[in-house]
Amino acid sequence: MATNTKVIADHNPPAVTKILAEFIVNHPNFENGGWDAKVQHEGERTFFNWLGCAVGASHHEAPSAALAAAQILQPAPQATLLGRSERVDIANAALINGISSHTFDFDDTHLKTVIHPAGPVASALLPLAELKCLSGAAVIDALIIGIDVACRVGNCMYPTHYDKGWHITGSTGMLGAAAACSRLLKLDVQQTMMALGIAASQPVGLREQFGTMSKPLHPGAAARTGLMAALMAQQGFTSSVRALEAPRGFIQVAAPQFNWNEITDELGKRFEISFNTYKPFACGIVSQPSMDACVQLKNLGVKPEDVESLELKVHSLVLELMGKKTPTIGLEGKFSVYHCCAVALIFGQAGEPEYSDAVVNRPDVLAMRAKVNAVVTDGIDEAGADVTAVLKDGRQIHVVIEHAIGSLERPMSDKDLEAKFHSQADEVLGTVKAQALIDMAWRMTTIGNVNELTQLAV
Amino acid sequence: MATNTKVIADHNPPAVTKILAEFIVNHPNFENGGWDAKVQHEGERTFFNWLGCAVGASHHEAPSAALAAAQILQPAPQATLLGRSERVDIANAALINGISSHTFDFDDTHLKTVIHPAGPVASALLPLAELKCLSGAAVIDALIIGIDVACRVGNCMYPTHYDKGWHITGSTGMLGAAAACSRLLKLDVQQTMMALGIAASQPVGLREQFGTMSKPLHPGAAARTGLMAALMAQQGFTSSVRALEAPRGFIQVAAPQFNWNEITDELGKRFEISFNTYKPFACGIVSQPSMDACVQLKNLGVKPEDVESLELKVHSLVLELMGKKTPTIGLEGKFSVYHCCAVALIFGQAGEPEYSDAVVNRPDVLAMRAKVNAVVTDGIDEAGADVTAVLKDGRQIHVVIEHAIGSLERPMSDKDLEAKFHSQADEVLGTVKAQALIDMAWRMTTIGNVNELTQLAV
Repeated sequence: MATNTKVIADHNPPAVTKILAEFIVNHPNFENGGWDAKVQHEGERTFFNWLGCAVGASHHEAPSAALAAAQILQPAPQATLLGRSERVDIANAALINGISSHTFDFDDTHLKTVIHPAGPVASALLPLAELKCLSGAAVIDALIIGIDVACRVGNCMYPTHYDKGWHITGSTGMLGAAAACSRLLKLDVQQTMMALGIAASQPVGLREQFGTMSKPLHPGAAARTGLMAALMAQQGFTSSVRALEAPRGFIQVAAPQFNWNEITDELGKRFEISFNTYKPFACGIVSQPSMDACVQLKNLGVKPEDVESLELKVHSLVLELMGKKTPTIGLEGKFSVYHCCAVALIFGQAGEPEYSDAVVNRPDVLAMRAKVNAVVTDGIDEAGADVTAVLKDGRQIHVVIEHAIGSLERPMSDKDLEAKFHSQADEVLGTVKAQALIDMAWRMTTIGNVNELTQLAV
Repeated sequence: MATNTKVIADHNPPAVTKILAEFIVNHPNFENGGWDAKVQHEGERTFFNWLGCAVGASHHEAPSAALAAAQILQPAPQATLLGRSERVDIANAALINGISSHTFDFDDTHLKTVIHPAGPVASALLPLAELKCLSGAAVIDALIIGIDVACRVGNCMYPTHYDKGWHITGSTGMLGAAAACSRLLKLDVQQTMMALGIAASQPVGLREQFGTMSKPLHPGAAARTGLMAALMAQQGFTSSVRALEAPRGFIQVAAPQFNWNEITDELGKRFEISFNTYKPFACGIVSQPSMDACVQLKNLGVKPEDVESLELKVHSLVLELMGKKTPTIGLEGKFSVYHCCAVALIFGQAGEPEYSDAVVNRPDVLAMRAKVNAVVTDGIDEAGADVTAVLKDGRQIHVVIEHAIGSLERPMSDKDLEAKFHSQADEVLGTVKAQALIDMAWRMTTIGNVNELTQLAV
C-alpha cells in the first residue's frame, strides 16, 4: 500500500493497537533521552497554552453548568479545577478542565487534522499527576506521547472521519488521554492495550454540536473517558487487543477511509506535537491573516482616527464564514472580519475581552468597523492577507501576509504565548498571580510535584 | 417515504430530537393513565429480570475491576451496588450496575434490534431514584419511556448501524438512559432535548469487544453517560436541538441507512417494551430452541442414564456459532450446543452455575455430552428445534419446537422469571433474602421509596 492511499475496509489490518501500546510503554522518557530539545519545548508550549485557556474560560457558563452537575455526585476534593476554588475527583476534574480549555476556541491546533490535542490529553493528565504527586517532566513526557497517539490516529482517519461529522478532537482524544494516562501510570504493554481498547469503545463528538456547550464537552468527556480507561486497565478490566484496527474496531467503524501507515510510519522518530500551532486571536482561523496585518499596521504607527478606510483583499471563505457586517453581541463579533480587524488595529490583539458585548458596541470600535471594506480577490491564499490602510492625509500603507502569525511557518513566539496567557488569565487570577503561574509553567519540566503549579492556578 | 424505506442521507430531516423530547415530557404517567396493564406488566418484568441479572453477576471480575477503578475517585456513598456492600456515587453506580447486569449475557432482548435495553436504562434510573427517594412507579414509568426511546432509535438505524460494527445496546442506550433520567427528573421539553443532545455526542460500543469485559462496559458506560447528560441539562448545559437528526448529528453519522418513521410512527401509542424478551438460558440465542426441547424431554421423564443418543436437527447457525464439541472451561461451554443440551437434560435449566468450570468437567455431564449429535438440516428455522431422545430400551421420544421458550410467541412466565432470578441471586444473597427481594420487586409500582427495595439487594 502506498503511503498516501486510504483504504475502505481491511480484514487483515496491522496490529496498530499493539504497536501503539509498545511505543507508549517503551519509548525513552526524559531521563533516557527520549525527547530532543525541540520536541520538549513544543511540549512545554502546548501545556503552557492549554493552561492559559483553561484558566481563562474557567468561570464561563459551560464549565459552571458541568460542575454543578458533577457536584450532585458529591465528588471527593482530589484535584484542582483550574481558575476556580472548588475541587472535585480526578475524573470530573478531567471533564471540567477539558471543557474550560476549549470553551473560547482559543486552544491549540494540529493543522493537518484540525485536532485540538491538548484539551483531551492535558486535561486527563494534570488531575492524575496531582493525585499521585508526580513531576512536571512526567506530565510533559506523557503529554507528548498522548498527543502523538491522538494525532496519528487522526492522521489515519482524516479527512473522511471528520467529513462524516465526527468532531475529531473528541473522537481521537479519548485515545490520546488513555495513552497519556497509561504512560503516567507506567502501565505495561498488555494493560496499555486494554486502556486503548476500553477508550476505543467510547468516542466522543459530533460536529453538529458546534456553537453549543457540547462542543467543549467533547475534549472534556474524552479526557474523562481516557483517564478512566487507564485506571480500569490498571485494575484488570479487559478489552479486545485489536479494538482500533479490527474490521469492527473503532477506526474501520468510524472512518469511511483510513491509512494505517499514518499510525506506524516513523513512530518514535517523528512526533506530531512538532506540528502543533497556537491561535493568536480568539476567533475562527480564516480571518487571522488579515488581523495579523492589522496588528502590523498598528505597530507601524497607524492610528484608527487617522484612517479613512481599511481595504482587505480576502479569500472567499473569509466572507462566507465571517462576513457579519454589524455584530451586536460578543459572540457575533467572532463571525465578523470587520469587527476582528477593527479590534486588531485598535488594541493590537483580539483575545476573549475583545469579543465582549461591551467592546462590540463601543463607539470607537463601531467607527473603525464602518471603515473596513473586504473584497474577495482571486489569488489570495487562505493562509494569506493583503491589507491597505488609506489614511486621511492621503498616504496608503500596504501590508501583505503570506503566512499569518500562529502558522507553522510563523509560529507564535514564547513571548506571544505569554501575552496570550495574560490576556486570558489576568481577569481570573489577577496579573500578579497570573505571572507567578506563567513563571512556574515555563519551568514545568523542573517541577518535582505538579501540585506546586496547580496551587497557583486557583 | 414508505415506512420500510431506509435512506442514506437527508438534508431536511424531521425534528426527531424535539418529537422524542415532547413524548418523554408529555406522555401521561401512571396517575394519568399513561400505561395500560399489559405495558405496565412488561415494565415490571423488564425491571425484575434486570435486577436478577445485576445481582447475579455483581461479584464477577468485570464489575469488580470497574469498581476498583471507581474507588480511586473516592466516590460518595450515594447509591447501592446491587449484590454488593460497597456504595458509590450515582454515576459510578450506573456504570457498575450496568456492567453487572450484562456480564452473564443473560439480560433482556428487544429482538427486532438485538438491543438489551434494561442494561443502560434501568442502571441509570435506579441510583438516581435512590438518591431522590422516588417511588417504584416513577422508576417503571421512566423505564418504559427510556426503553421506547432507545429501541425506536435502534429501529431507525438497524440493521446497518449494527452491521457496521456498533454494539447497538450501548450506542442507543445512552439516549434511553438520558430519556429515562430526564423523565425521572421532570425536565421540561427544552431541557430534555439538551439531555438527548448531550448524550448523542457520546455513543458507546464496538462489536469487536464481544468476548471481553468491554462488552458489558457498553451498557454501563451508556447508563452513566445518559444519567450525567440529564443532570447536565438540568443545570443549563446546552447541545444542538437537532443532535439526533441533523446531517452531522448522531443518526446520520453512525448509521449508513436509517428510517425516521421508525422513531415517529405510533409514538405514544405503541411501546417497544411490548416486544422485549427474556432469555431462559445463559448462553447464545441460537441453541435455546434445542435446549428448550431437552428441558421438555426431562419433564417427560427422560433420564440421562437411559439415553443411548440425543439427535438434534439444527439450523446451520447453531454449529457455526456454538459448535464446540469438547469444552474444557465454563466460558467454552457457552459456545457448545453439546454441553448446553446435556445440562438442559440433566438439570432442566442452564443458568450461570451450569456454565461453571466444575459443571463443564463433571463426569455425568461429559457422559451425556458425548451422546449428543447435531446435524444441520434444511427446513429447520432459526427459532425452531427438532430433538429426538433414542433410549436404551429402543423407544424414541421426539420433541419439535416451533418457537422456543423466551420468544415473543412463547414468553417466559412470571414464574419462569422468578426461577431465573433465584438461579442468579441465591448464590449472592442467599435464598431467603433473594425471595424477599423478589417479593418486593414484583410490588415495584406500589413502593413509595425505592430504597426499600435496594436495601434488600445488598
